Amino acid sequence: MKKLKIVTIGGGSSYTPELMEGFIKRYKELPITEIWLVDIEEGKEKLQIVGDMAKRMWEASGYPCEVHLTLDRREALKDADFVTTQFRVGLLDARIKDERIPLSHGILGQETNGAGGIFKAFRTIPVILDIIKDIKELCPNAWLINFTNPSGMITEAAIKYGGFEKTVGLCNVPIRYMMMASEALDIPVEDLNFKFAGLNHFHWHRVWDKAGKERTNEIIEAVYNPNSTKEFKGMENIKDIKMLYEQIKDLALLPCSYHRYYYVSDDMLKNELEEFKKGETRAEVVKKLEAQLFELYKDINLDHKPEQLSKRGGAYYSDAACEVINSIYNDKKTEMVVSTRNNGTISDLPYDSIVEVSSIITSKGPEPLNWGKFDSAPRALLQHMKGMEETVIEAAYTGNYNKALHAFTINPLIPSGQIAKDLLDEMLIAHKNHLPQFKEKIEELENQ
Amino acid sequence: MKKLKIVTIGGGSSYTPELMEGFIKRYKELPITEIWLVDIEEGKEKLQIVGDMAKRMWEASGYPCEVHLTLDRREALKDADFVTTQFRVGLLDARIKDERIPLSHGILGQETNGAGGIFKAFRTIPVILDIIKDIKELCPNAWLINFTNPSGMITEAAIKYGGFEKTVGLCNVPIRYMMMASEALDIPVEDLNFKFAGLNHFHWHRVWDKAGKERTNEIIEAVYNPNSTKEFKGMENIKDIKMLYEQIKDLALLPCSYHRYYYVSDDMLKNELEEFKKGETRAEVVKKLEAQLFELYKDINLDHKPEQLSKRGGAYYSDAACEVINSIYNDKKTEMVVSTRNNGTISDLPYDSIVEVSSIITSKGPEPLNWGKFDSAPRALLQHMKGMEETVIEAAYTGNYNKALHAFTINPLIPSGQIAKDLLDEMLIAHKNHLPQFKEKIEELENQ
Amino acid sequence: MKKLKIVTIGGGSSYTPELMEGFIKRYKELPITEIWLVDIEEGKEKLQIVGDMAKRMWEASGYPCEVHLTLDRREALKDADFVTTQFRVGLLDARIKDERIPLSHGILGQETNGAGGIFKAFRTIPVILDIIKDIKELCPNAWLINFTNPSGMITEAAIKYGGFEKTVGLCNVPIRYMMMASEALDIPVEDLNFKFAGLNHFHWHRVWDKAGKERTNEIIEAVYNPNSTKEFKGMENIKDIKMLYEQIKDLALLPCSYHRYYYVSDDMLKNELEEFKKGETRAEVVKKLEAQLFELYKDINLDHKPEQLSKRGGAYYSDAACEVINSIYNDKKTEMVVSTRNNGTISDLPYDSIVEVSSIITSKGPEPLNWGKFDSAPRALLQHMKGMEETVIEAAYTGNYNKALHAFTINPLIPSGQIAKDLLDEMLIAHKNHLPQFKEKIEELENQ
Amino acid sequence: MKKLKIVTIGGGSSYTPELMEGFIKRYKELPITEIWLVDIEEGKEKLQIVGDMAKRMWEASGYPCEVHLTLDRREALKDADFVTTQFRVGLLDARIKDERIPLSHGILGQETNGAGGIFKAFRTIPVILDIIKDIKELCPNAWLINFTNPSGMITEAAIKYGGFEKTVGLCNVPIRYMMMASEALDIPVEDLNFKFAGLNHFHWHRVWDKAGKERTNEIIEAVYNPNSTKEFKGMENIKDIKMLYEQIKDLALLPCSYHRYYYVSDDMLKNELEEFKKGETRAEVVKKLEAQLFELYKDINLDHKPEQLSKRGGAYYSDAACEVINSIYNDKKTEMVVSTRNNGTISDLPYDSIVEVSSIITSKGPEPLNWGKFDSAPRALLQHMKGMEETVIEAAYTGNYNKALHAFTINPLIPSGQIAKDLLDEMLIAHKNHLPQFKEKIEELENQ
Repeated sequence: MKKLKIVTIGGGSSYTPELMEGFIKRYKELPITEIWLVDIEEGKEKLQIVGDMAKRMWEASGYPCEVHLTLDRREALKDADFVTTQFRVGLLDARIKDERIPLSHGILGQETNGAGGIFKAFRTIPVILDIIKDIKELCPNAWLINFTNPSGMITEAAIKYGGFEKTVGLCNVPIRYMMMASEALDIPVEDLNFKFAGLNHFHWHRVWDKAGKERTNEIIEAVYNPNSTKEFKGMENIKDIKMLYEQIKDLALLPCSYHRYYYVSDDMLKNELEEFKKGETRAEVVKKLEAQLFELYKDINLDHKPEQLSKRGGAYYSDAACEVINSIYNDKKTEMVVSTRNNGTISDLPYDSIVEVSSIITSKGPEPLNWGKFDSAPRALLQHMKGMEETVIEAAYTGNYNKALHAFTINPLIPSGQIAKDLLDEMLIAHKNHLPQFKEKIEELENQ
Repeated sequence: MKKLKIVTIGGGSSYTPELMEGFIKRYKELPITEIWLVDIEEGKEKLQIVGDMAKRMWEASGYPCEVHLTLDRREALKDADFVTTQFRVGLLDARIKDERIPLSHGILGQETNGAGGIFKAFRTIPVILDIIKDIKELCPNAWLINFTNPSGMITEAAIKYGGFEKTVGLCNVPIRYMMMASEALDIPVEDLNFKFAGLNHFHWHRVWDKAGKERTNEIIEAVYNPNSTKEFKGMENIKDIKMLYEQIKDLALLPCSYHRYYYVSDDMLKNELEEFKKGETRAEVVKKLEAQLFELYKDINLDHKPEQLSKRGGAYYSDAACEVINSIYNDKKTEMVVSTRNNGTISDLPYDSIVEVSSIITSKGPEPLNWGKFDSAPRALLQHMKGMEETVIEAAYTGNYNKALHAFTINPLIPSGQIAKDLLDEMLIAHKNHLPQFKEKIEELENQ
Repeated sequence: MKKLKIVTIGGGSSYTPELMEGFIKRYKELPITEIWLVDIEEGKEKLQIVGDMAKRMWEASGYPCEVHLTLDRREALKDADFVTTQFRVGLLDARIKDERIPLSHGILGQETNGAGGIFKAFRTIPVILDIIKDIKELCPNAWLINFTNPSGMITEAAIKYGGFEKTVGLCNVPIRYMMMASEALDIPVEDLNFKFAGLNHFHWHRVWDKAGKERTNEIIEAVYNPNSTKEFKGMENIKDIKMLYEQIKDLALLPCSYHRYYYVSDDMLKNELEEFKKGETRAEVVKKLEAQLFELYKDINLDHKPEQLSKRGGAYYSDAACEVINSIYNDKKTEMVVSTRNNGTISDLPYDSIVEVSSIITSKGPEPLNWGKFDSAPRALLQHMKGMEETVIEAAYTGNYNKALHAFTINPLIPSGQIAKDLLDEMLIAHKNHLPQFKEKIEELENQ
Repeated sequence: MKKLKIVTIGGGSSYTPELMEGFIKRYKELPITEIWLVDIEEGKEKLQIVGDMAKRMWEASGYPCEVHLTLDRREALKDADFVTTQFRVGLLDARIKDERIPLSHGILGQETNGAGGIFKAFRTIPVILDIIKDIKELCPNAWLINFTNPSGMITEAAIKYGGFEKTVGLCNVPIRYMMMASEALDIPVEDLNFKFAGLNHFHWHRVWDKAGKERTNEIIEAVYNPNSTKEFKGMENIKDIKMLYEQIKDLALLPCSYHRYYYVSDDMLKNELEEFKKGETRAEVVKKLEAQLFELYKDINLDHKPEQLSKRGGAYYSDAACEVINSIYNDKKTEMVVSTRNNGTISDLPYDSIVEVSSIITSKGPEPLNWGKFDSAPRALLQHMKGMEETVIEAAYTGNYNKALHAFTINPLIPSGQIAKDLLDEMLIAHKNHLPQFKEKIEELENQ
């Protein structure tokens, strides 16, 4: 039997059961022989709980896949075929800071695109580059499937600064929008065609039916027209505040949930400030949810993914990861939306950028479907976000404080000026244990 | 003696004496034979006052130039060599609305880049296109020198939608920054070299001395370093709130005054809200200043530009216009910063955009010095602004309400969501007399 | 039963039986209800022969598809779902001139990229634009599948000048190269992945196996290394003269058969001059072959495609056409190489160019897989050819003689100077009956 | 008195007196204190002759500039302010081979764009990179003014591979075309405006008068219309064979002399073959001319540039070099045509290419006037040449034989195939003493 080794970094994550479920479901196509769940000292307990759960799931499946739990990343990586990353530097407590500190200044935290997302990138990029160093040494032919957020920026850092081209970034948001389109049109999702393009958590899409007719505008009507009778469930991790019909009507594109931060920033902020006051920011909710999940996972009789996991915003993420791996392994040519090198796919963005686009997943990696140009209004926001992302990544890589302030200054969710600087400084100090690149500046700030 | 005919649309403007002074100063190179000051019925009285003043100025100069005052634009345009535009649709009262209505919602008005600027574009674009129709018929070989704000967008509309390539847009901001550089380095302005690139009211520049040494960073230190002992006078029309040293230090570019709205938005807003409460928004201040100026102009003994005119934010505007005309007429090849077609000058912006860049002004028009690419952080903002401008112009041209809302949504100075829509609607109604293209929508709004 | 109407313009072509075979083979997926074979007066007899043959083929198949023969194009087009074009303006005699006249000057004729190809474009473009006018009126929702050569230029004219976006250009060359790769690697074609990019008759490709490993260089070794023991059959319509191993070895791309004209121009010319002397230019050979085919088609017992048809260079063309139609109709997402709008797929070519690239054929048309940039050496030739194509199309559209001469001047297969002008003039006169756009110039030439 | 040190590499060149004359003429603006003429052992005698002549010229001028003659390049470079390069690796005998070997195969040699030019690049690029290594160490603030041919490729190698941004490439062809325009229009050259863009020896230009009126088409009529009565002297180094009127008439651009190789290749070849037979190739003519010049230079009474020097094709080259140096030194902002980094100036060419364009020469180097896009026909050739140049430079830098063959294959002046390979091989062997990078391959070829 041919070896097929998967390594999951951040294996102690509450999402691991979904990942296991995804692999088990695909076992006949994707006969994994060993899975290594890797975590760090601080995550040891969670790794044990979720790792035992994973073992039970495989046992129940009847498939002969070995599950290894380890804190030794290098041992795990040796000769891996696929590496998935779902770790969270600083754990959920760091995310709580990412969200609460900005809100304490009256500013949206937003753990992927806002101040929180910038700090998540600052914490994660040094770690992902370290992992890549190991991968290049220990399993240079492996594929790295990243679903650690901010997924687009992490993928860009991995490819541009880490020089590891075989990195694919993943997100579950596109899947949600495929489902929504299906719901809006009453057409099964497999009978629709989609084209997505943009950045991670910042993409647009168009929808066609099997007869080749574009249905984008009908979905706009169903979702955004106030006279529409359709009801839609939003994304679990984003408050369901709708963009205005008139904002979307002539766009000829469907926005994604994160666009709400840019289209209805007033309501989004109001809402998050309320949650903040109640101690119910998304991070806090997730922390409780996660604690409940780990309680469930401790049940030695539980050997399948519990329903409750789907309430996490990240649902489908792991399933998408399994499908990417499956499609690469078997050259299945599944059409998926992934973060990959632009190379001209979106004409409005730099050639070497990472973009999130509809791609055919082949054994040689994702082949993006060409997109071309955007109209002026979406282009304005898209180009802004990409420039912001590049600035964040550069600051994360170099530890240049002024670049970091520049990233805060141009981030559309952060008001600029002294307020942005104060927020940056406070967050640097709060996260100091996970920001080696900013060490010197943080000490200077602490001594002021 | 060869005819050389200049037509000034918006001739009743308080700036006209500066324009006259500029022409008189250059008469030996630029022997103008006739100047036609054109205005509309509502501006008749001001035209008479400032026109009489203009006549006195020429008389005092001793040069044989005829000054004509007229409300008949078409008569004036016949066979013109140069047409300058400095009109303000809706006069200063419209500007007061542009500033006060947004501030009444707690939002920056900003008469060129913000909500106010968008409405100024909405009011002005139909008029400039009308003027161009006349120019094409009556003086197709003339050059159109536009200094009506928002100068970049008006120039883009004139060239892209009006199809009149011989349009040059002007602004006085670059001149101010040349002076500031000179002050910062204690080097006469003529001993410095500059390179500006970006958009109108949204450009950056670099500075070199005559030995070819770049001095940009020294100016950054002199202007932005809190330890600097240099004092600078700001632009009269923009509150002198400084950007933070750390924001600028690693930029390797000098920003312009309008960047403050994007770099220190918090202070800018606070300040304008205070002015708003005191009834001292810039528009209101200008209105008082203008009334004083017209009082002065009535003095039949006054035959030269009064000192007080320099306090207007637009000082040097008219002088720049005279110099552009002079340089075109005499093929002087003066290096100036003008709004002109991009054609690849700035690689980050669309080929057919209007950009504001250092150019050699020749008898065949401006020849932009190539600029190339920006770094990610300034690029982010620049591309955003251009996409926003394009959306504004398209909305102004088509009268499409949804495009107008989109322009408001993506404008960085306007919070997005219902608040933006409410503001848009209120401004549409407030300016209804000057927005023929939105007539139908405004009626609908009024009937709600 | 739902109507599904196919119209084939140039229905009297000897390729029609292959087309019928392709449709019959796919009938269960693609239940065509009516096929209209259209031809012109001069092709009436051939239409009757091949049309009767087509009818026998369908009868033998047992499927209820009606075959109509007509000279009335407009009647045929009414409500068509798909229109295929395989006509040859001036018939094979025109092609004989395209090849023999240049060779009589010692110059390669080359019926698609050389002087012959330019004249084929000159004759065909006015006709295709006429057809499109009819399509827009009579069946605006149809897809136009063009396999009239020069397929890339005709498709570019149809989309750019005809404004008919639903045009797809086809060629059989890529299929041949897929087969060659399969032969070189001893791997079934369905177990290989390909990526093609370039222009019609001027593309490169790369090959991977199902495990994602690139095999391009192995194919280069098998095909071009003089020590290789593999034997390959060339394309029937291009003399099998090999490019040099050293030319290809470091290219990391596989060229196509038409590249021989640019890589081993000396041998190609020598060979064609020999054929010319013997009266065996490709056109003359084809004419004989075609006469034989029509003799076969007359046999009232023949009701399937005869083997001999495969000897034509165009074999697989019709099958590719059937598959494109099938994939559009059924949204099959077959990966095929087609001529379609660039839109940034190949970064080195203009956005609005037609390119020939690997695409997913969906019900909304071809979705090109993004390609990006070429290395300098292939880029040099590719950009040259595209500029040449654009010049040809513009000359064909406008009838501007100087543009036509410019196209000849920059065509790499035609020596420049007086010789090119003499050749152009002689060909204009020789083809005068099919060049309405050059009428005036031709008369002038004849009267010299 | 402030030091101002000029170093001329290839100081023994027959052009040196023109250079001296140019410096003497400009002495009041450009007070050079020392000139170092550097040459190699093989050029020692010529260096002595021309160096003595140079000394006499300065003495006659009365200006206190020291002239140093040396074979020690490093000593000369120490603290230089400007370095000019006018050396010829392998001397004129190498050029004779560059021209005669191709012609012996019936192929144009062409010492800048053809096979000869490719070999000149192969020989020169290793040397220029060596010089740059010394410059970076010994005079890192100097400007390198290169007028060694092929000037564009050498400049591209210096900047891209040598990483020395302060390199400016020069050519005298544009000056000739300014004079021709002046002659054609009967307008003094200083009353005309020009815009040049393209590559070295492959550029186009447009011409305007001081009133801003374009005069390009009038010059086309005067030069190319067979009915024109104007007579023009061609470039001394290129046979005066005219392009056809119909080729140029609708171009709206004026070509340069080297375009003849691509527009009237037949006549150019015929002519050079005749010269070849007579032993009068350009290189041989130049060698005789040069011998005569050195005879003149030996005259100890000669202390000014002799008239005969102007007959060399390179006349004005040295004067252009003096003017570039003067304009950089004094920030004169002279408009000149130089080879410099593209950075988007010509949209059709790669961002990092070297292009030859109208530029303002400032103390910070050349500032190119933006050009934008070309029409399809000139674009085709231009892009081809740039890709060819890149391939040549890469082959020259790496010593990759296959790349070299590729450069030969795609060079439009060399027929492709075995003939190109044979020519390449023969030239490699013939030039083996100056091609260290191809050493191994040459040995292999010699042993075949």
